[in-house]
Amino acid sequence: MSSIAGKNIKMSIFGESHGKAIGVVIDDIPAGIEIDFDKIRHILNRRAPGKKYTTPRAEKDEFNILSGLKNSVTTGSPLTAIFENKNTKSKDYDRHKIIPRPSHADYTAFVRYDGHSDFSGGGHFSGRLTAPITFAGAIAKQILEKEGIYIGAHLKQIGEIRDEKFDDIDLDKNIFEIISNKDFPVINEDVEIKMKELLAEISQEGDSIGAVLECGVTGIEAGIGNPMFDGIENNLAKNLFAIPGVKAISFGSGFESAKMRGSEHNDEFYYKDNKVKTKTNNSGGIQGGITNGMPIILDIAMKPTASIFIEQNTINLSEEKEEKLLIEGRHDPCIGIRAVPVLEALVAFTLLDFILEKKR
Amino acid sequence: MSSIAGKNIKMSIFGESHGKAIGVVIDDIPAGIEIDFDKIRHILNRRAPGKKYTTPRAEKDEFNILSGLKNSVTTGSPLTAIFENKNTKSKDYDRHKIIPRPSHADYTAFVRYDGHSDFSGGGHFSGRLTAPITFAGAIAKQILEKEGIYIGAHLKQIGEIRDEKFDDIDLDKNIFEIISNKDFPVINEDVEIKMKELLAEISQEGDSIGAVLECGVTGIEAGIGNPMFDGIENNLAKNLFAIPGVKAISFGSGFESAKMRGSEHNDEFYYKDNKVKTKTNNSGGIQGGITNGMPIILDIAMKPTASIFIEQNTINLSEEKEEKLLIEGRHDPCIGIRAVPVLEALVAFTLLDFILEKKR
Amino acid sequence: MSSIAGKNIKMSIFGESHGKAIGVVIDDIPAGIEIDFDKIRHILNRRAPGKKYTTPRAEKDEFNILSGLKNSVTTGSPLTAIFENKNTKSKDYDRHKIIPRPSHADYTAFVRYDGHSDFSGGGHFSGRLTAPITFAGAIAKQILEKEGIYIGAHLKQIGEIRDEKFDDIDLDKNIFEIISNKDFPVINEDVEIKMKELLAEISQEGDSIGAVLECGVTGIEAGIGNPMFDGIENNLAKNLFAIPGVKAISFGSGFESAKMRGSEHNDEFYYKDNKVKTKTNNSGGIQGGITNGMPIILDIAMKPTASIFIEQNTINLSEEKEEKLLIEGRHDPCIGIRAVPVLEALVAFTLLDFILEKKR
Amino acid sequence: MSSIAGKNIKMSIFGESHGKAIGVVIDDIPAGIEIDFDKIRHILNRRAPGKKYTTPRAEKDEFNILSGLKNSVTTGSPLTAIFENKNTKSKDYDRHKIIPRPSHADYTAFVRYDGHSDFSGGGHFSGRLTAPITFAGAIAKQILEKEGIYIGAHLKQIGEIRDEKFDDIDLDKNIFEIISNKDFPVINEDVEIKMKELLAEISQEGDSIGAVLECGVTGIEAGIGNPMFDGIENNLAKNLFAIPGVKAISFGSGFESAKMRGSEHNDEFYYKDNKVKTKTNNSGGIQGGITNGMPIILDIAMKPTASIFIEQNTINLSEEKEEKLLIEGRHDPCIGIRAVPVLEALVAFTLLDFILEKKR
Repeated sequence: MSSIAGKNIKMSIFGESHGKAIGVVIDDIPAGIEIDFDKIRHILNRRAPGKKYTTPRAEKDEFNILSGLKNSVTTGSPLTAIFENKNTKSKDYDRHKIIPRPSHADYTAFVRYDGHSDFSGGGHFSGRLTAPITFAGAIAKQILEKEGIYIGAHLKQIGEIRDEKFDDIDLDKNIFEIISNKDFPVINEDVEIKMKELLAEISQEGDSIGAVLECGVTGIEAGIGNPMFDGIENNLAKNLFAIPGVKAISFGSGFESAKMRGSEHNDEFYYKDNKVKTKTNNSGGIQGGITNGMPIILDIAMKPTASIFIEQNTINLSEEKEEKLLIEGRHDPCIGIRAVPVLEALVAFTLLDFILEKKR
Repeated sequence: MSSIAGKNIKMSIFGESHGKAIGVVIDDIPAGIEIDFDKIRHILNRRAPGKKYTTPRAEKDEFNILSGLKNSVTTGSPLTAIFENKNTKSKDYDRHKIIPRPSHADYTAFVRYDGHSDFSGGGHFSGRLTAPITFAGAIAKQILEKEGIYIGAHLKQIGEIRDEKFDDIDLDKNIFEIISNKDFPVINEDVEIKMKELLAEISQEGDSIGAVLECGVTGIEAGIGNPMFDGIENNLAKNLFAIPGVKAISFGSGFESAKMRGSEHNDEFYYKDNKVKTKTNNSGGIQGGITNGMPIILDIAMKPTASIFIEQNTINLSEEKEEKLLIEGRHDPCIGIRAVPVLEALVAFTLLDFILEKKR
Repeated sequence: MSSIAGKNIKMSIFGESHGKAIGVVIDDIPAGIEIDFDKIRHILNRRAPGKKYTTPRAEKDEFNILSGLKNSVTTGSPLTAIFENKNTKSKDYDRHKIIPRPSHADYTAFVRYDGHSDFSGGGHFSGRLTAPITFAGAIAKQILEKEGIYIGAHLKQIGEIRDEKFDDIDLDKNIFEIISNKDFPVINEDVEIKMKELLAEISQEGDSIGAVLECGVTGIEAGIGNPMFDGIENNLAKNLFAIPGVKAISFGSGFESAKMRGSEHNDEFYYKDNKVKTKTNNSGGIQGGITNGMPIILDIAMKPTASIFIEQNTINLSEEKEEKLLIEGRHDPCIGIRAVPVLEALVAFTLLDFILEKKR
Repeated sequence: MSSIAGKNIKMSIFGESHGKAIGVVIDDIPAGIEIDFDKIRHILNRRAPGKKYTTPRAEKDEFNILSGLKNSVTTGSPLTAIFENKNTKSKDYDRHKIIPRPSHADYTAFVRYDGHSDFSGGGHFSGRLTAPITFAGAIAKQILEKEGIYIGAHLKQIGEIRDEKFDDIDLDKNIFEIISNKDFPVINEDVEIKMKELLAEISQEGDSIGAVLECGVTGIEAGIGNPMFDGIENNLAKNLFAIPGVKAISFGSGFESAKMRGSEHNDEFYYKDNKVKTKTNNSGGIQGGITNGMPIILDIAMKPTASIFIEQNTINLSEEKEEKLLIEGRHDPCIGIRAVPVLEALVAFTLLDFILEKKR
């Protein structure tokens, strides 16, 4: 299922970066949900390009609902939203079919689809496709919020600059609200200044940089999930690797756990106000694929934007020779920034999929 | 699909650690494959307990084939293998139903299954269930080897001690052969000595430690995989989080990518002997969810064994009070060691699933 | 997966009869297929309303391709087509939400979706949704034809009037071509006259009538399919019950088999021109879920159109009382007629799904 | 998924007729269900061979539970049952690999699995595999009965002899109880005598005969199911074609609907004791893929047993010539008789799958 995600609720993503339109069909969406479209637009705007430190491609991310809605309430039949592509410059990309850009999917798509893939702007592989993903996730996020489950993310690291971590014991949903209203998604203001300086420098060099994003979930009760191949981590990981550029995912202690002793890593149980809690949260809120009632905490690593304005070595697939390449166009110095709301949305969609599963 | 993995070939895992038997049904297995059972036993022995630095539970991991085979050749109908549980001590575990062990799945399974889960030895959540997983993967590994695809793994890190990395450019399958015949799965012999010293020390303290495992795949051609939700990373991640204790997974540059510039991270293309190669392999052999013909390189982080012989704080779910717990039984000081062949097997199974997909 | 069909190729259907648009996303469609859109339009026109003996709702079934295509060739990324709804009269249907039409899905959808379903024109349950289904199937049909597999259907029975059956031994694809170019999809011309007379009579009475449709597949080789739950019959049946009004499906001898002896029913093998054939084809081309190389022959029964222009007894769900109902609007006297190309298309889609499966 | 059925609960069937054992893994089974094994044995005994009018192969159908159960209560982890094969005579079947029996799956399996299929006793295609299917369904039946949903079936027709139909309006579960305790599953005693006479005659001739089975479901509430590809009919049909020999399936009016007018076929609504009912039940309890609260009524047609004791024409695949064949062994004159409990069980499993779906 290349571009379809989910079991109990499905999103089917379609479109290419420079085609007529991109969009999403949300199948098996619950009926009777009143959608607040201002909230949807708010999360889409956080993802949208055209702001400082992001690509200047000024695509508004306006959507058009084709089905599944009556008076802003879901009917239970598939909900379809399309985003028309207006600001496209296909000629920029024509030659990448035979001169693949390093660390883009141009070459692998060429081989996979025997040269038939549409390469303009990355085609179906483009980061632009995260717009309909975010749309679907934004709806999931609203549904979860009605159940008291809140999800937020921030930029945890760029280069060597690190933001504060979320409080993984007493994670407060207000921090999500605060970050989501900032123009730059970090917790600490000094960090924000340093990161912006670094980004300005990198932009000027025509280069790009990677990032770590942290996502937290608060309000989810214990007992959600499944063992083995169908746990919370399995499905979050499967879906989050759909975000272009993700290189790693970790839960709780993540790679740090390799350095830790069991006596240090184990999350001891205790009662707080008659509720089961753990003193530490190295488990990231999940044990055996199932939530334990503590906040879910996960990190993803995102590689530097593959498009840079520095000459690179590559090949010409048609002439089978090596070649120099200087990419033109409009690009983000750090794709991690705009990926923050996408991460939140996709985590929401994945968790809603579990919530819609009847406990058995 | 809690305990079923795969799309084009499926494994359905069943059993509890201290029940009658555990096993696997492999559905949609290709017909006409002659299985070399010595190779299967070799990989199972690497996973088996009872060796130094691993739990002394002396379970032989002998399997019995119930279906799907005629004269050691697959018939195309489901292949079923069962492993009888002989060396079980259920009484060790009876009380964990109400006194959950920290960082085990006792508590989450209790909530998820309303107290009906079988907790003896971890039940269906036990690491013992990786035996049938490894069996299924070992068959997949054999099939892939017939297609020239080789998979190996090693212990990359315990505590602060780090093994050499695989050569991610010219990865030679011989290194896999060498490691698989060692009693301790590392590349560097000095590292082996240091790790063993650390493990002896930790064992004596009754404690445990985490690990990082590295897995490499060589010989896989370009163009295997899918975009978005069904790429190589998505499916490897989904399946690998089935190994108990995995906290993180990364491909290629992984979390290091956050510190890198695009100009450094991008894998430039060139021709070598008329074949497309990249000069670096930060992509870990995958771009846009699809193989690029370079070795696949991935790491997983495994937490310290949750069972330690040190008193811990926990709760009594029946009396709703806090309690001290001292776990008895037989445990690995580092589950990462025995997880090495499991990792190889599950990567093999996941890649075979892709190979069995008709290119379209 | 309510509105998603397929495993190796998927169609995700969306839209409501009287909403903005209906459509389909075809995921995992093979790359490099040049689509002949005139052929697509031909099959859609056969399904389209507005002809004699069908509903006068004059919807042209014009589609708009949003993604997945470059210069009429598939790119491998999801192919999306939308059909705008122009000729809608929502007010006709408003009251069916509380006054359900007998043998429509108004009542069951009301209960299923807690009253939130969009009932205008049947909403997502409308026969209009067979337009995108037919679109997807028409593409599958083209792909199969390139592999020498041809599919055709006809009206086999209306009331007591029966058309000739397909030749289930030497089924010639030319008969499909002939029927597809007729304005009334039967083989025998005398039967056509009688059926048209019956339909004229029924239309005048404001009544409707059921039908049996026969579908044949020629050119499919032996060995396609799977045992048990994933055979040819299983998947054809699963998909064909998506056509509104289908009450039954049979393969080969169907219900007649109950009256037959084994000695009469068994299809004896013989060689013809060095190819394996059977003397009879009671198996309908399938044994054990797998094709045997003979033509696939299946029948579906379609109920009379539920909308009739005769007063009926029903209930008022809001006032919880019984009520009389006289349906207005535009309806087919026999939905079986327009279902002929839908049947062909959906059989094609289902068989392509098998063809895209790697033999293993 | 050849031998795996279900979405919210799965059964994975394995084994061959003359292998070591056959069995089933039931994944995602709800936890906390106390199983009454006497009831399971009762339904398995109805399916078991060795009785008059059925094959004399005296296999007891004794099962052994390997996992998923503690003190007869489900734990939520996969429930596995195996049935050892004791009474096997493999040499009977050796030659069917190259001399395929007419209307068996010998030839199609040969082609599908390139000659590697295990043909002894039909291998994985054998009717014996319905034992584990029935086991899984018998558990589902128990779970449904706790929710007030009852399922029963009977032999509706053999040759031209027809039993009474179920009352499709006021279907009483007591009739199911009565039939399940009979040695011959029909309602009417005169019919029973006639059918037994016919079967005696057919057995003496070494021939076999087909059958129609009717299945009824009572106590299922309105609003269960989904539209389009995931409705009640779609999934029942998909699963029921797994029973070897099924040639057709119909719901409610079935093929009779082709002869009916809408005014006659439409099921008018009315209130009875404040509950919504329909005056007729041509819909078979389902409209638009969703239950309407009336009894579900369906028929399946089963072909005559393919194994007959009369010489038949077939081919020799090895020598590529025509040949005469006289099958030996032990066979049912009418497989429809023993299929009655299988039908009930598989309908139960399919409906439980829907009941386990969270309404959304």
